[in-house]
Amino acid sequence: MKVLSAFLLTLCIGIANSFAQDGPIIRDGEFTFLLAQKGDEWKEQDQRIDARLEEIRAANDGRPPNILYILIDDVSFGQMGNRTLNYVTGIETPNINELAGEGLSLMRMYTEPSCTPTRTAMLTGRHPVRAGVEEVKVALVGEGLSAEEVTIAEILKEVGYNTAHVGKWHQGDIEQAYPHNQGFDWAAFPLHQQVQLSLMTREAMTANNMLGFHASGQNNQFAIDQRFKPYGLVTGVEAEAGAKAREVGMDPGEEWTQAKYEEMNERYQRQILEQLERLAGEDAPFFLQYWPLYPLNFVYPDQAISRNGGFHADKLQLLDGWIGDLLARVDDLGLRDNTIVVLMADNGLMYHYEGTSGLNQLIYRGGKTQHLEGGVRTDAFIRWPGVIEPGNAAGDIIHVSDLFTTFARIADATDYIPRDRVIDGLDQTALLLEGEGNSRRDYVYVYEGTVLRSVVKQEFKMHLPAPGQPGAAAPVFNIYRDPREEHPQVGYSLWSGASFQDMVKRHQLTIANHPHLPLGKGVPYEGIENLRPESELTREVFASWQ
Amino acid sequence: MKVLSAFLLTLCIGIANSFAQDGPIIRDGEFTFLLAQKGDEWKEQDQRIDARLEEIRAANDGRPPNILYILIDDVSFGQMGNRTLNYVTGIETPNINELAGEGLSLMRMYTEPSCTPTRTAMLTGRHPVRAGVEEVKVALVGEGLSAEEVTIAEILKEVGYNTAHVGKWHQGDIEQAYPHNQGFDWAAFPLHQQVQLSLMTREAMTANNMLGFHASGQNNQFAIDQRFKPYGLVTGVEAEAGAKAREVGMDPGEEWTQAKYEEMNERYQRQILEQLERLAGEDAPFFLQYWPLYPLNFVYPDQAISRNGGFHADKLQLLDGWIGDLLARVDDLGLRDNTIVVLMADNGLMYHYEGTSGLNQLIYRGGKTQHLEGGVRTDAFIRWPGVIEPGNAAGDIIHVSDLFTTFARIADATDYIPRDRVIDGLDQTALLLEGEGNSRRDYVYVYEGTVLRSVVKQEFKMHLPAPGQPGAAAPVFNIYRDPREEHPQVGYSLWSGASFQDMVKRHQLTIANHPHLPLGKGVPYEGIENLRPESELTREVFASWQ
Repeated sequence: MKVLSAFLLTLCIGIANSFAQDGPIIRDGEFTFLLAQKGDEWKEQDQRIDARLEEIRAANDGRPPNILYILIDDVSFGQMGNRTLNYVTGIETPNINELAGEGLSLMRMYTEPSCTPTRTAMLTGRHPVRAGVEEVKVALVGEGLSAEEVTIAEILKEVGYNTAHVGKWHQGDIEQAYPHNQGFDWAAFPLHQQVQLSLMTREAMTANNMLGFHASGQNNQFAIDQRFKPYGLVTGVEAEAGAKAREVGMDPGEEWTQAKYEEMNERYQRQILEQLERLAGEDAPFFLQYWPLYPLNFVYPDQAISRNGGFHADKLQLLDGWIGDLLARVDDLGLRDNTIVVLMADNGLMYHYEGTSGLNQLIYRGGKTQHLEGGVRTDAFIRWPGVIEPGNAAGDIIHVSDLFTTFARIADATDYIPRDRVIDGLDQTALLLEGEGNSRRDYVYVYEGTVLRSVVKQEFKMHLPAPGQPGAAAPVFNIYRDPREEHPQVGYSLWSGASFQDMVKRHQLTIANHPHLPLGKGVPYEGIENLRPESELTREVFASWQ
Repeated sequence: MKVLSAFLLTLCIGIANSFAQDGPIIRDGEFTFLLAQKGDEWKEQDQRIDARLEEIRAANDGRPPNILYILIDDVSFGQMGNRTLNYVTGIETPNINELAGEGLSLMRMYTEPSCTPTRTAMLTGRHPVRAGVEEVKVALVGEGLSAEEVTIAEILKEVGYNTAHVGKWHQGDIEQAYPHNQGFDWAAFPLHQQVQLSLMTREAMTANNMLGFHASGQNNQFAIDQRFKPYGLVTGVEAEAGAKAREVGMDPGEEWTQAKYEEMNERYQRQILEQLERLAGEDAPFFLQYWPLYPLNFVYPDQAISRNGGFHADKLQLLDGWIGDLLARVDDLGLRDNTIVVLMADNGLMYHYEGTSGLNQLIYRGGKTQHLEGGVRTDAFIRWPGVIEPGNAAGDIIHVSDLFTTFARIADATDYIPRDRVIDGLDQTALLLEGEGNSRRDYVYVYEGTVLRSVVKQEFKMHLPAPGQPGAAAPVFNIYRDPREEHPQVGYSLWSGASFQDMVKRHQLTIANHPHLPLGKGVPYEGIENLRPESELTREVFASWQ
């Protein structure tokens, strides 16, 4: 939606809105296919669910629950929340383990295989490909999440939620894509991501992790192009909805360092506590996002704090402590009971750095950027005291986009989910309220960028054949028997090839009927009021060849 | 020890014995090296431990605790005892998970990489190579655990324990090696192992897991040798100490089948309950071993009971239920409080069957027969109510041979540990009583058969170089950062090569000073009173070429 209208709409909640539309939500063909099998049963269940949600709100003075959504970067399934696996890795996450034990562990949470698309999926409830979104590159792109996309923050604002975002955003460098223009009342976030903030430093070079970037590490008289290496990038900004953003903590000409990266992480930790406190004092429910930059980090500590001691690993253990502090503050502020806390990772780890980073592939094979389970399976925990019993777990398939639809339902804001585009996110409120076995999906489509690479159905997963290859040539795996996707069974391929092909067809038919929307385009760094001269320069250079 | 003297000795407990000797236990050089660093501290701790053990016995009418030792076959670390990993594999082990939660989870239990050696290590407290033991082969060998070896059962009998063994034994086909001749008052066990019992069947052939063995599956007019395939093997026997064994459940000429294998498993489950009941009624502490044959199994069920449904996987879930029944019986008989229950696996899974078996490498790479962590790291849980707090875990290194020394200490039988041979098993009572961080070892030597293949020290592990290769060529891994041993770091090799070499030297020096003892030799199937004609025949044929 347009920035201005979003801002005005917040002034007239309940009177009018631009999202509410008649008709059903447009679904992917695969869900419609399931609906034909289970529709009556789910309709009946939905009546129970509505009554229960009503009852929960009534017990809280009519207020729907607050939502605290913590999204950790690049951590594969099993890296946090489980004591046994803590022992395997030598990384302790006692606070996340405790959180996991207090609610529902989602044992088959699928994300997209990279930061930008997972975050888009959660924000919009759509496979990012439908919004034209791939991974946002490290330097200037003039692209980002379109204003036409409707985020969960915008939807929750429609029903009176206060919203704030702290930490990684990674939805593009154009003004319409910034969080405070996508439904968040307030936001503190870096314009780009950790390649800039944690790798493009002198320290990461001497730590043997980013050779060739820093000027001091290159001595090549044949180099002509001085614009090959990213330069002058904006770092962290802060902003209120509808206002300009302001870069913080960087003076003109200053060099970005590891120390500055660490300060930025500490600042976000401070700010999430401040925001929580501020929102707790308001007379409205809140939706608060904490998307830390850690554990991504590429410099070894002077003194290991974990037994593992790897440069990622140590920051994961540090971050666990910070999350403990945040959850303690939730308690101190008396928010525990009517606050849903969701903690999860956005995608698998950067396996390229395994061995020395201290994180490793662990159970599932593969990592970030890959359609393998190691790329798209993450730890995910939901705590909702009084509603979800402690110690619960669910083996159902769930996709990160489902959070969009589920949060909307719980906030009684389903009416504001747009009806003019495909929504992939399914309402999983039944899973939360009635437990394991109540997911509305037994399938996931797994994309790498714009390419559909795998289809998951129940325990079966097909790696799609290359174009022109027959379906029978596509490997099919049983994820329970072979979590690392190393032993395809030809028998599966032979019986399931046609069924998987039908699933792909249903998905493609949906796309044909509802074509993808375009990615947002614009001028990089618009809407930042204090651009440094070097940032102005990089913007001018970028504009010169567009 | 000789069978007869063992029998007579049980009649004069406390008066005389052949094991008790003066002088210290002979240790491997590496432990002596640690002792020089920690000896004073451990001496002081041992005084506390002795007082505490005294106190525990006093609280139980002077009786040391019963010990129920459950050893599961071929299951890698993470396959049982952990809900998260249950969800990964689609195999539920709620009873084992519950047991794990009631005591101490040993997070770095090392075994030997195969059935026979692990069992020997536990029984004798020695690296099996010291007793001449490698894996006992599938058919007749005329070899087995020597009567000269002193087992934990023999030691516990010295201080008045009743002993019994039910299930897999796999210590050889000669009379001196049978459990009832190695310290167990009563035993029910198969003479061989599951290759015979579960793979050499018509059903395993039609299940595509054992092609070429069953006569109906071979039609080759060029075959001359009718003795190439094992035949006429003895199946399950039962015996009392000092008496002859008797084969049960097989008539002359009868063909062994999958149904018979399943009956055998069910019989052992029945018998472990019977033995428990019998021993509970005696006026003495007991040492009871249950070494199930399941989950090894090579035929698919008609109806999957687990989500996984693999032929191993389903039996693991079934076995978990049986263990639940056994532990419930412990409770029913009022034994819970003064009974130590140890449950663990003997080595990693048969990765050769992963994919279809339903078990897989999961976290650590490799499996049975291999020195990789996947071969020698297993789940291990100890419950000791009132002594070990529920919900405990320890990241310390421990080796299966340590159970020998630890059980002896707890039973106040350390004096009966022989002083004329190297004992590798370390006393880990401090770890049980004072918790994590109190292991007496930070190292393990990992053999494959008679070849030392790896040395583990703290988080570092060296795969030993091939003969003639320099130490710097040997890969060294950090097990926390790289549990799958896929990313050796040359930096580790360079600084640790010399230290690892010193460790090998200390170990070799010990061997030079205390040479290995010979494996027991004899006539196969001696001491079985009802040999079938086909078993007589195979024995005669075997004798003919020896």
